[in-house]
Amino acid sequence: MSAPPHEARPTGPGRALPDTQQGMRRRNLARVMHAVSAEGPLSRAAVASHIGLTRAAVSTLVDELIRTGLLEELGPERPGRVGRPGSALAVSGRGPAGIGGEIGVDHLAVCAVDLRGEVRARAVRHGTNRGRAPEPVLRELTGLVRRVVADGEREGLWPAGLAVAVPGLVGRDARTVVRAPNLDWHDVDLSTLLPGEFPLTVDNEANFGGLAELWLGAETPRDFLHVSAEIGIGAALVVDGSLLRGTRGFAGELGHVPVHPDGPDCVCGSRGCLEQYAGEEAVLRAAGLELGEDRVGLLARRAADGDERVRRALREAGTALGVALTGALNLLDPEAVVLGGALAGLAPWLLPSLESELAHRTAGPPCPVSVSRLGPEGPLLGAAHSVVRAVLDDPAGIAGWR
Amino acid sequence: MSAPPHEARPTGPGRALPDTQQGMRRRNLARVMHAVSAEGPLSRAAVASHIGLTRAAVSTLVDELIRTGLLEELGPERPGRVGRPGSALAVSGRGPAGIGGEIGVDHLAVCAVDLRGEVRARAVRHGTNRGRAPEPVLRELTGLVRRVVADGEREGLWPAGLAVAVPGLVGRDARTVVRAPNLDWHDVDLSTLLPGEFPLTVDNEANFGGLAELWLGAETPRDFLHVSAEIGIGAALVVDGSLLRGTRGFAGELGHVPVHPDGPDCVCGSRGCLEQYAGEEAVLRAAGLELGEDRVGLLARRAADGDERVRRALREAGTALGVALTGALNLLDPEAVVLGGALAGLAPWLLPSLESELAHRTAGPPCPVSVSRLGPEGPLLGAAHSVVRAVLDDPAGIAGWR
Repeated sequence: MSAPPHEARPTGPGRALPDTQQGMRRRNLARVMHAVSAEGPLSRAAVASHIGLTRAAVSTLVDELIRTGLLEELGPERPGRVGRPGSALAVSGRGPAGIGGEIGVDHLAVCAVDLRGEVRARAVRHGTNRGRAPEPVLRELTGLVRRVVADGEREGLWPAGLAVAVPGLVGRDARTVVRAPNLDWHDVDLSTLLPGEFPLTVDNEANFGGLAELWLGAETPRDFLHVSAEIGIGAALVVDGSLLRGTRGFAGELGHVPVHPDGPDCVCGSRGCLEQYAGEEAVLRAAGLELGEDRVGLLARRAADGDERVRRALREAGTALGVALTGALNLLDPEAVVLGGALAGLAPWLLPSLESELAHRTAGPPCPVSVSRLGPEGPLLGAAHSVVRAVLDDPAGIAGWR
Repeated sequence: MSAPPHEARPTGPGRALPDTQQGMRRRNLARVMHAVSAEGPLSRAAVASHIGLTRAAVSTLVDELIRTGLLEELGPERPGRVGRPGSALAVSGRGPAGIGGEIGVDHLAVCAVDLRGEVRARAVRHGTNRGRAPEPVLRELTGLVRRVVADGEREGLWPAGLAVAVPGLVGRDARTVVRAPNLDWHDVDLSTLLPGEFPLTVDNEANFGGLAELWLGAETPRDFLHVSAEIGIGAALVVDGSLLRGTRGFAGELGHVPVHPDGPDCVCGSRGCLEQYAGEEAVLRAAGLELGEDRVGLLARRAADGDERVRRALREAGTALGVALTGALNLLDPEAVVLGGALAGLAPWLLPSLESELAHRTAGPPCPVSVSRLGPEGPLLGAAHSVVRAVLDDPAGIAGWR
C-alpha cells in the first residue's frame, strides 16, 4: 500500500477553496463526490440534476473522478427506465482510505475506512497506557497502523491520511497533545513519533466522537452537544454541522464546569467541577468499587444486578450532569444532547436523574437527550471518517490528480 | 428618503452565494466593497492587488459599484506616487444607510449609520417601557424611525434596512420576540408593528452588543464572549467572527447558568442562576437600594463614594460572574471576555473578584477580561451596523442594481 505524495494535506469541511475558476472546479468535484456518496449509485444525469449543473459539465467532472479512481462505473443501469440508459456511478471501494487511530487509557486501536464508509481493516491491543511514556505507546500504535495499512493494500486501498484520537487536550496545530492527565502526557508532538509518509491529524477523543455522531449517527441534528467519558468527561459542541474548537482547541471541557463552586478540589485547580461528581473515579468511589480495568462494564453489571449503592452513585452522577448541562444548554441552545462513549453504557441509570434535573431547570420543553449507538467505537470511527470526509470535501486535494 | 424595492433582503455575513459565474461576480463585488471600506481610499490598482484580481476585472466591478452609488471617486490621487495617477475610490457617504433601533427597558433609540460607518442621525426617548403593551411602544419607535429616516434623506441617504435590538429572546425568524420578561412581552411579531417598506431584522440586545464589539471594538479578537446586562444578564458568543445563535436563537443565556444549584428560585424555573447573584435586581437588593431609573449610575456613584454595602454587593456579583464564566470558558475556550452594556460602567468594582475567581479556577493563564468602550451604546450601534455589513457583504443584493 504505497502512499502517493499529497498535493495538500486534506483539511476539514470548513476549508474555503479560492474563488477562481480552478477553485470552482474543485468545489464542483466535491459536489459530485458528495452527491454520489450520499445518494449513489447515480447516473450522470441524476448527478447533474442533484447538483444543478449541466450534464456536459458533470460528465467532465465525473471523467476526472473516474480517472483518479475515486468513482467507478457499475455498467449500464437496468432497462425499463425512461430515456437512454446511463452507466451508474458509485464511490470506489478501492483507492484512498482513511486510517483512524485511538490512544485510549486502556487500549490502542487502528482501523481503515474506505470512501464508501466501510471499515475494511482493524487492529486492537488491550492493556493500560496509564503512566506509560509516549514513545513506546506510539511505537505500538505505529505497528498497528502498518498492519492495517498492509491489510488495506491487499484490497487495493492506500492511506489518504491518519487521524488519531487521544484522551486529552490537543493544540490547534492538530498534532500536539498539550495535556492528557490520565496518560500523564504534556506537550507531546505526535507527528515526530508516528509514520511521516501520510498526513496526520490529532484530535481529542470527544471531538472525534462528536464528529462520528454527526456523520454516522441515526438522525443526528446539525446542532448538538455530544457528551462522552472515558476517565474524564468531555463534550463536543457541533454547531451547524461543524465542531466548535475554541481558540486554543480546548473547547468542550464540560468536566470542569463548576457544579458546586465550594465542592471538593479538582486536579484542574478549581473546586466542585462536574468530574468530582460524575467522573469515573468519583462514581467508582461513591459506589465503593476499585479503579481497575473495564470499570464501565463493572458499574453497568452491578447496576443491572440491582446494587443500590452503585445505582445511587449513578443517580447522583446524573444529577450533577444535569446541572452542568443546564449551564451548557443555556449558553449554546443546541437541538439535542447525545450521550456517547462510556456514558452510553450507563445511560439507563444516569438518564432519569439527568433528565429530571434538566426538566426542573428549564423554562419550556427541555432539550432532548439521546444515547449514541456508536458507544465506545465513536472516537475511532470519527477519526477514520474525518480523513474520508476530507477526500470527499476536496477530491482534487489528494494525490495523483492533474 | 424613498426606499427603493430590494432584490433580496440583505442577510448576515454567513450567507453563501450560489457557486456560479453570477455568484462569483457578487462575491467579488463584496470583496471590492470590503477592501475599500477597510483600507480606502484606494486606487483601482490597489484594490486589484488587495483582492488578487486583475486590474481589468476590478475596473468592471468598480464601475458597477460607482453606478449604483456605493463607491465614489475622489478624483486623481495626489502626484508624487509612482506610475500613472489613478482616481482614489472611497465608500460613498450617500446612498444606503443602516437604521438601528433599540427597545430598552428604560428608553427607545434609533440611529442611521452610513456605509462609511458614521452615525448620521439619531433620536432617543427616555421613559420606562416596563409592562407597556407592544403596540404603543412600537408606535413610538416607528415615530423615531421615521424622524431618523427623514433626517437621513436630507443628506442623501436611504434606508437599506432596519435592525432592532430587544431585551429578550428572539426566534430564528429574526422578527418574533419570544420572551422579554422585563417588558412582559411574549411571542410578539414585531414585523407587523414596524414600518414594512424596508427589510427588518430583530435580535437580542446582547447579540447586537457583541457584534458591535466585533466590528467596532478596539483590537477585539474573532473568538470572544461578550457579557452584558441591562436588567438581565446576557452573553454573545462570537466564534471565528460569527455569532453563535443556537437552534432556536436562544444561545448566550449566561444569566441562567446555575451558580449554586440549590440557591434561590429564579423566574426561569431553575434555582441559583447567575441572575440571582449578579442580576441588577439582586445587586440592588444586596446593596440596600431601590429599583428605580438609572440604576447602574446609582450603583456606580455609591461605589465610587465608598459605600461599603454597595461595594460588597458588586464584589459578590463579580464572584458569581466568575463562577458562571468559568463554566463558559471551559466549554467555549474563547480568546477573551469583554464586559459590555451596564457591566462596563460597574467594571471597576466587579473585575477584581471576577478575575480572582477565574484565576483560582483555571489551569494555566486565565482568559483575559476587558471592558467595552462602547458601553450602553453597543446594541444600538450593532443593530445599525448589521444592516451596513449586509450591504458590504452583498452589494448586488440591494436595490437599484442591474
